Amino acid sequence: MNILITSGGTSEKIDDVRHLTNHATGRLGKEIAQALEEDGITIHYVHGPKAVLPKASNCQFYPIASVSELYTIMEKLLTTISFDYVIHSMAVSDYELDAATDEVLLAQTIAQYVMKQSFTTEAELTEIIKNSLFDSEALQQKAQKKISSKNEKLILMMKKAPKVIGHIKQWQPETHLIGFKLLVDVSEEHLVSIAQESITKNQADLILANDLTQISDNQHHALLVSKNGIEQRFSTKQDIAQGIKKIILSN
Amino acid sequence: MNILITSGGTSEKIDDVRHLTNHATGRLGKEIAQALEEDGITIHYVHGPKAVLPKASNCQFYPIASVSELYTIMEKLLTTISFDYVIHSMAVSDYELDAATDEVLLAQTIAQYVMKQSFTTEAELTEIIKNSLFDSEALQQKAQKKISSKNEKLILMMKKAPKVIGHIKQWQPETHLIGFKLLVDVSEEHLVSIAQESITKNQADLILANDLTQISDNQHHALLVSKNGIEQRFSTKQDIAQGIKKIILSN
Repeated sequence: MNILITSGGTSEKIDDVRHLTNHATGRLGKEIAQALEEDGITIHYVHGPKAVLPKASNCQFYPIASVSELYTIMEKLLTTISFDYVIHSMAVSDYELDAATDEVLLAQTIAQYVMKQSFTTEAELTEIIKNSLFDSEALQQKAQKKISSKNEKLILMMKKAPKVIGHIKQWQPETHLIGFKLLVDVSEEHLVSIAQESITKNQADLILANDLTQISDNQHHALLVSKNGIEQRFSTKQDIAQGIKKIILSN
Repeated sequence: MNILITSGGTSEKIDDVRHLTNHATGRLGKEIAQALEEDGITIHYVHGPKAVLPKASNCQFYPIASVSELYTIMEKLLTTISFDYVIHSMAVSDYELDAATDEVLLAQTIAQYVMKQSFTTEAELTEIIKNSLFDSEALQQKAQKKISSKNEKLILMMKKAPKVIGHIKQWQPETHLIGFKLLVDVSEEHLVSIAQESITKNQADLILANDLTQISDNQHHALLVSKNGIEQRFSTKQDIAQGIKKIILSN
């Protein structure tokens, strides 16, 4: 049996020194991998830069940093190896860097667009300005290895990163997909409805939905959601790992 | 003897999930602290969230995340304890979050400014737009615990963070200050000249100047620069730690 687990968080490079990252530790993915240390199960483990790693003899590791690196390795794995389950617990950045700019260059770029076009209403002007914000070539500070700190503002224009979860079933329609959804301080109804949206949109079989305010060192409240609603409730990472193991082994 | 060491990197919160950070590991600060494990030396160790920590019995730890937290703890320590040396090796972010916005809100905010004022030249318009970028209240997305990923762009407006190194001698004029400067892929002349600028500006006694391209797991080339020029050259973290120890003990 082949299982693909993603764990930890992605990290988007801003320059050679700075990066945009998230708080994911990789502890949940580690627990799941360790629970699955069974005869005949091979785990392919894709993880972010600072993720804690499982101690499991049947694990093959694939380190990545950016969403784009994640996309590449996932495409390669899912189009070459047949997986019984994909457990996509990695916290993937919604955005990646489009351009790093400063207040002077941004104002100049917008002004050039505005001077070239005519407008009468504020709505028309807003539209012109909005379009200028997509000219990442004009906005990008001249290639610098470390962005200069001479200007008052550092403006990071982030664009949507590719949605890796949405491609998993396209790359391998016959696999089972357990996705993860993390929200912050929302109601259970909202959490379930967002999880079900993700099930439909990404053809996921199950979504583990959790709320950052319900996660601490010793507890990790989470809901396992299917298209029918809440299937199971968990309160620790060990619980979650055992629950997922049971589902995989009973399938 | 009291020594204050800062180590690791700062981390600026973008929202409850995301943060902007840097690659600093804290390994150099750790080496320095461990080299200074001597009778009669007390180390106050201020460190970033993911810094590796020294194993030294004479260390008191002060964890921080943001530049603003660093500023607060440094002010407190330097105005209450007398330090023989401050070794400021932490990689401190030049910027902190001013506002997180999206392409629609940014364009609307700028358009409102432009509609209210008259201009004839592109330079005048640029000035108006530039001023609108400082209106962080208008730009800030309505308080969200996790920034929505519904918009095409996430625009992070970062403003200059307080320069902690510039305050150290103001808080405690009689201390000795060893600062650190990290550049990426520059000539030695440029590195020395930037280090000397920092000496003058921050009243530092010495600056340890290094280039990211000269740092790997096993080597760490660095120059110890005074107002007179290069005082010493090092090629590993252990070298640097021993060199700094010698300076502190001979003083």
